[in-house]
Amino acid sequence: MDRKKVGEELLKRLGREKVLTDELDLMYYSYDSSFLTKLKPVPPLAVVLPKSTEDVQTVMRFAYENGINVIPRGAGTGETGGCVAINDGIVLDLSTFDEIVEIDVSNMQVIVRPGIVHAQLNKELAKYNLFFPPDPGSSQMCTVGGMVANNASGLRAVKYGCTEQYVLGLEVVLPNGDIITTGGLKSKAIKNVSGLNLTKLMVGSEGILGVITKIRLRCWPKPKARGIAMAVFDNLDDAPATVLEVYQAGIMPSGIEILDSSAIEAVNQFKPEIGLPAAEAILLFEVDGNPPSVEYEGNTIKEIASRRARLVEWATDPKRMAELWEGRSVTAAAAARVRKDGSRIFAGEDISVPLSKVADTLRAIRKLGDKYGIKVVNYGHIGDGNVHSAPVINPENPEEVEKVQKLVHEIHLLAIEMGGTTTGEHGVGVVRREYAQLEHGLAHKYMQEIKKVFDPKGIMNPGKLI
Amino acid sequence: MDRKKVGEELLKRLGREKVLTDELDLMYYSYDSSFLTKLKPVPPLAVVLPKSTEDVQTVMRFAYENGINVIPRGAGTGETGGCVAINDGIVLDLSTFDEIVEIDVSNMQVIVRPGIVHAQLNKELAKYNLFFPPDPGSSQMCTVGGMVANNASGLRAVKYGCTEQYVLGLEVVLPNGDIITTGGLKSKAIKNVSGLNLTKLMVGSEGILGVITKIRLRCWPKPKARGIAMAVFDNLDDAPATVLEVYQAGIMPSGIEILDSSAIEAVNQFKPEIGLPAAEAILLFEVDGNPPSVEYEGNTIKEIASRRARLVEWATDPKRMAELWEGRSVTAAAAARVRKDGSRIFAGEDISVPLSKVADTLRAIRKLGDKYGIKVVNYGHIGDGNVHSAPVINPENPEEVEKVQKLVHEIHLLAIEMGGTTTGEHGVGVVRREYAQLEHGLAHKYMQEIKKVFDPKGIMNPGKLI
Repeated sequence: MDRKKVGEELLKRLGREKVLTDELDLMYYSYDSSFLTKLKPVPPLAVVLPKSTEDVQTVMRFAYENGINVIPRGAGTGETGGCVAINDGIVLDLSTFDEIVEIDVSNMQVIVRPGIVHAQLNKELAKYNLFFPPDPGSSQMCTVGGMVANNASGLRAVKYGCTEQYVLGLEVVLPNGDIITTGGLKSKAIKNVSGLNLTKLMVGSEGILGVITKIRLRCWPKPKARGIAMAVFDNLDDAPATVLEVYQAGIMPSGIEILDSSAIEAVNQFKPEIGLPAAEAILLFEVDGNPPSVEYEGNTIKEIASRRARLVEWATDPKRMAELWEGRSVTAAAAARVRKDGSRIFAGEDISVPLSKVADTLRAIRKLGDKYGIKVVNYGHIGDGNVHSAPVINPENPEEVEKVQKLVHEIHLLAIEMGGTTTGEHGVGVVRREYAQLEHGLAHKYMQEIKKVFDPKGIMNPGKLI
Repeated sequence: MDRKKVGEELLKRLGREKVLTDELDLMYYSYDSSFLTKLKPVPPLAVVLPKSTEDVQTVMRFAYENGINVIPRGAGTGETGGCVAINDGIVLDLSTFDEIVEIDVSNMQVIVRPGIVHAQLNKELAKYNLFFPPDPGSSQMCTVGGMVANNASGLRAVKYGCTEQYVLGLEVVLPNGDIITTGGLKSKAIKNVSGLNLTKLMVGSEGILGVITKIRLRCWPKPKARGIAMAVFDNLDDAPATVLEVYQAGIMPSGIEILDSSAIEAVNQFKPEIGLPAAEAILLFEVDGNPPSVEYEGNTIKEIASRRARLVEWATDPKRMAELWEGRSVTAAAAARVRKDGSRIFAGEDISVPLSKVADTLRAIRKLGDKYGIKVVNYGHIGDGNVHSAPVINPENPEEVEKVQKLVHEIHLLAIEMGGTTTGEHGVGVVRREYAQLEHGLAHKYMQEIKKVFDPKGIMNPGKLI
C-alpha cells in the first residue's frame, strides 16, 4: 500500500487529530538519538498518536491485514534506531498516551500508560513517599513505555536493578490485534509465579513482539537520605579494586560512577571552574537509605577508598553533593565539545563488561581511539561494568565517519571478547543487531522462533533486536 | 516403549551408576511434598542421575527420538507435583549434579550446577562476604536448580525479590538435545539487554521448556547486621496497616511475617513454653544492613507498630532474636499437630493477594474452614501478600479428603477474586494448572505457543504449569 493510501486509511479509522501524514511532521520521526539515524534518517509512512488501547488495536488490525510494519515509539531518546521505521511502516507515537491510571499506595504499585515521562511519574509518586527506582540519564524526557521496551536502567541499577525488576504486569496489543495481560488478568499481587513469565519476556523486547499499552509497576519506599563520596586515583586499576572492597564491606551503594582520564580532561576543558583534579580515574559513590546508615556507609567508603586514592571526599550537604557530582553530570555535554569542529556521536556507547575487566577495557578503548585517530571520552556505571564511550568526530567529514564506524565495531567486539555485551542498558535496535548471533549463538534461533509466535507476519518493528 | 526397554536403553547409554530401574528406587520418585502425589503417587519409567550436561543431552536425545516424557527433579521438596511423572516418563534427578563451578568474587557472581543445595551454596559464599538472597523455607534441602525452575523466594522476597532477580544466565538442554546459553554465550556481565530475555522466560518455567544444567547467579554483599521486631495486635486489620506505615517511613524490611490467630493457637498448643500472646495477629519484622541502620530501622518500626499494637519488642541480641522468631519457625510443625489424628496437607498453601486484601483474605479463609469443618492454620509473608494456609485433616478419612479438596479449590478462587494469584512462590505444577486459563486469559494461549517452540513433541514435563 502506498504512503498516500496508508495515510487515508488511517485517517478514516482514527480521525485527523490522531494521524500525522504531513512531510514535515514525518521528518521529525525519521531519526532518534542514534548516530545511524542521524546519518540516514527514514521517515515513516504515517504516524499515529493513539489515546487508548483500542486505538492501538485499530492500527494493528489494519497493519496486520495489509502487511504493513508498525514501529512503537516513546520519546525518541533511544540511541539504537529502535523506534525508527527503517524498513518503512507506521510509527505509533505513544508519548501522548500518558495517563497515570492509578497510584495504589496501599499495594505499593502504580498503573500507567506507556507515554508517561519518567521524571513526571517519580514526581507524582514522591507525594506518597514512593519511587520507581530506575533512573536513566534521559529521565526528564524518556517515557516509561520506552524504558520497559528497552529494559532501561541508569545510575542506580547497581543497587536497584533494571526496569524489569519493577514490572509486575503489562497489557500488550499483539500484531494480530489480540490484547493480552501479562502477570495475571486482574492481579495486583506483588509476588506471582503462575504461568510462563511473559512479563519479563516483553520487557526489553524493543517492540518486536507487540505494543505495550498499560504497565503495572512495583514502587519502593523512597529513602530519606543520601550522600556522595568522590575518590581520585592516580592508577586506573585502583578504581575497580576499590569498588570491590566496598562490596566486600557489605555495602551496596545506590550508584558507582567512573570518569577516566579522557572524561576528566573533557570536563576540565568544558568547565574549568569545576576544577576536577587531573587523574587516571575519579569514582563517585552515591549511597542512600536512612540517615545513620548513609553516614555509616559514607564514612566506610571514605576509609576504604583512602587506602588507594590520592583524595577522597564525603558529603551529605546538598550543595556540596551537587558540586561533587557536577563533573559527572556535565560529562556528556563536555564530551560533545572536546573538539571545536566535532560532535559526540551515539554509537558504541553502551558496552557492559565484568567489573574485573573494566580497567583493561578502558585502556583498550583508549588504544583503539589512538589507532583510528579519534578522541573517545569514557565514563559510566562502573558498579555494574557498564561503560559509556563517546567518540568525538566531525560528522561532516566522510573519512571520519567511515573511521568511527570501524572504531565502534572494534569496541563492540572488544566488549564480547572481555566477557561482556555490546549493550548494558541502551538496547540493540538496528545498530547492534549484527552482534546478536555472536552474543547468543544457538539461543538466537529460539529468540527468532518466539518472535514468530507473536508476530507471524513479521510486521512488528522488523529489523530490530534479533 | 515399555518400562523394561526404556531402562535397558538408558543403561546402555549411561551405565549402571547413573540409571535407576529398581521398583523400590522408583517408588521414591513417585511423589513430592504435594498432597496430590501423596494421595496418588506415580513411579517414573526410570530415573537418571546425570553428572554432566552431556548426560542430560543423551537422555533428551533418546527421549526425543522415542517420544518419551522427561521430568526434571531437584530435591523433591516442591508442593505442586511438578517433578513427578504423572503422565509416565523418565525422571532426571539433578540433585547429584551439584558442583559449584566457580565463585567469581571479583565479579560478584557464582556459577553452579543445578543440584547444589541452597544452604550449602550460601555457606560457601559467606566465606567471601557474599550471599544469594532468596531464602526458601526448604533452604537446607532444596536445590538451586529447583529454585530457578520454580522462581522460588521465601522470607526475604519483600526486600530482595525472587530468584529471577539473581539469575544472570543459564545453560539449558532443550528437548531436541540442543544446548543453549541464555544471557550471553560467554558473558559475565551483570547488566545485559542484548536479545530477548530467555533467561527470565526459563526462570519459573517448571521444567516444561528444557533442562537447566548450569546457572550463573548474581551475588550480593552480605549485610553485617540484622534485628527482629515482634508486634502483637488485637485487631487483624492493624497488621497490614502497620506494614504500610513502615513502608511509608522509607523502610524496606528484609522480611515481614504474619501469624494469624489460627497460627498463634497452633504454636501455643504445640509448644506452650514459647508463650506467644493470644492475639488476632502477630507481625515479625526482620531488618538487615549495617549496624546503625538496623538500630535506626528497628526503633522506627517499634515506634510505628506501637501506635496500634498491644505489645512490641525489638531485639538485636542473637538469643532474643531467635526467641522472638521461634513462633514463626515452628508454625509449620505446629500446624501439623493441631489435631492428634490429623496431618497438615500441602494444598492451597501458597496464595498471594494484594497487601490491602490480606486481612479480608484471612477472614475469608477462616470462614471457608468453618464451612467445611476443617481447621486451617494461616501464616506467611505479609510483606508481599503471600499467605501460606495449612489445612489439617485426617488423610485416611475419604470424606475429609473430599471436603478438603473443595476447600482448597475455594481458597484458590478466593485468591483470584481478591486480585491475587493461586501461587506466590511454590509454583503451579499439576495442582494449580486448572487455574491457568482463569488467571491469564488469552495470554495463556501464547504461553502454550511458546512451549511448542521449545518442545514441539510435548515431551518436556507435560501436564504442568500451563
